[in-house]
Amino acid sequence: MITKEAKQLEKNLRLNFNQPELLVTALTHRSMGANNNERLEFLGDSILGFVIAQKLYDAFPDASEGVLSRLRASLVNQDSLAGLARKHHIGDYLILGSGELKSGGFRRDSILSDALEAIIGALFRDQGIEACQTWILNLFAEKLTELTADNWKKDPKTQLQELMQSRGVDLPEYQLVTMSGLPHAQSFQITCRTRLIDEICTGTGASRKKAEQSAAEQMLLLLQREKI
Amino acid sequence: MITKEAKQLEKNLRLNFNQPELLVTALTHRSMGANNNERLEFLGDSILGFVIAQKLYDAFPDASEGVLSRLRASLVNQDSLAGLARKHHIGDYLILGSGELKSGGFRRDSILSDALEAIIGALFRDQGIEACQTWILNLFAEKLTELTADNWKKDPKTQLQELMQSRGVDLPEYQLVTMSGLPHAQSFQITCRTRLIDEICTGTGASRKKAEQSAAEQMLLLLQREKI
Repeated sequence: MITKEAKQLEKNLRLNFNQPELLVTALTHRSMGANNNERLEFLGDSILGFVIAQKLYDAFPDASEGVLSRLRASLVNQDSLAGLARKHHIGDYLILGSGELKSGGFRRDSILSDALEAIIGALFRDQGIEACQTWILNLFAEKLTELTADNWKKDPKTQLQELMQSRGVDLPEYQLVTMSGLPHAQSFQITCRTRLIDEICTGTGASRKKAEQSAAEQMLLLLQREKI
Repeated sequence: MITKEAKQLEKNLRLNFNQPELLVTALTHRSMGANNNERLEFLGDSILGFVIAQKLYDAFPDASEGVLSRLRASLVNQDSLAGLARKHHIGDYLILGSGELKSGGFRRDSILSDALEAIIGALFRDQGIEACQTWILNLFAEKLTELTADNWKKDPKTQLQELMQSRGVDLPEYQLVTMSGLPHAQSFQITCRTRLIDEICTGTGASRKKAEQSAAEQMLLLLQREKI
C-alpha cells in the first residue's frame, strides 16, 4: 500500500504527501486496531466545517445564518461525503479488518465519509491549512457551482409547509407560549410541532410572525440534522 | 460606540481591528435588525471548532477521537463561552434592541456566547486565520492548562456509570442486538439505555465489551450535547 498503491490514490486525489504514512493512517479503519483514522477524522471534520463555512460566507453575502447553515448541511453530510469518496475510488484503498472486509465495509457510507474527512486531516498535518482549503474547494467545486442561495431563500415556514406536503403529513402546528415586553417592544415565543418528529422547537421574535419563522427554521434544522 | 468605546473593548480583548466596523457588527444582536452578528457567529463558530480541535489533537497525542470530542465539548459550549465573554466584559458593549435591553439580554448566556463567536468571525475577516488561532489559544490558555486528558481517560462505561450514580438514578442497561461474522471476526451490536434520556444509543465492536464501551461513549456524547 505504502508504495505503488498509495501513489495511485494520491494521483486520483491530486495530492502529493510529504509523509505518505499520514495518508495510510487516514485510510485505516478502526477495525484494524489502535493506529486508525479516527483522530485524523476528528481533525478533518473541523477543517471541512471551517473551509465550507468561510466559502459560503463569501459566496452568499446576503444569506442569513440560517440559510448558510442549511447550505453547509446540504454540502457536508455523510451522503455527500461518501459520494465524493466513491467518485475518487477511495473505497478501493481502505485498510479494513477482516470482519469489515467480509461485510463490505469499503462500500459503507459511514466508513467512506470518515475516510474522506481523515484524508483532509492528514493533508492538514502534512501541508497546513492553505493546502487544505485549496483541495477542499476543488473537491467541492462542482457542488458549489450547482449551489444557489435561491433554493434556500424561501422563508422557513413555507419550506417546512412544503416539506410536510411532500411527505403527505399534516401541516406544522404553531402555538404561542409567551408574550412579553411593552407594546412597542414585544417579544413572542412560539413553538412548532410536526408529525415527523417528537421534539418541539421554539422560536422567539419581535412579532408573532417572526417568532413562527424562527420556530420553523429551528424545526428545519432539526429535521435535517436527524436526517428525517 | 465606534470610537472611544470600541477602543476600550479592543483593549480589553487585546485586539486591534483594521476595520473596527466588523467589531461593531459582531456586537450587534439580531434584535437590532438586519445588519447583526449572526453571519459572523456562523463563521466564528466553525473557526473556534477547528482551532480547538487542532490544539487538542497536538496536545493529546494518545487521546482517542472520543476523548478529543469530549475535551472539545468541555471547552467550547455556551456556558464556557459566556463565562469568557463575562471575563472580558463583552456584555457592556453589546448593541441590543430595546426589548432585549430591558429584559437584560446583555446578561444572557446565549447572547454573550454568540457575540464571542461573532468576534472570532470578525477577527478572521479582519486579520485571517493565524491571528484567530493566536487569539483563541490565548483566550483559552487558562482552560487549556487546567485540562488534562486524565479526567477523560476513564473508559466510557465507567464514566457513564459514575454519572448515573452521581445523579442517583439506576445504572445504564446494555443489550445485545446483533452478533455477526465468523468466530474469529465477529461484530457485536449493543444498545445502551439510561434513565436520563429517552433515546437509545448503539455501539458496535469486535467484542461484546468493545461494543458496550462504544455504546456508552455515544450515550456520554448525547448527554453532553443535550446538556443533561
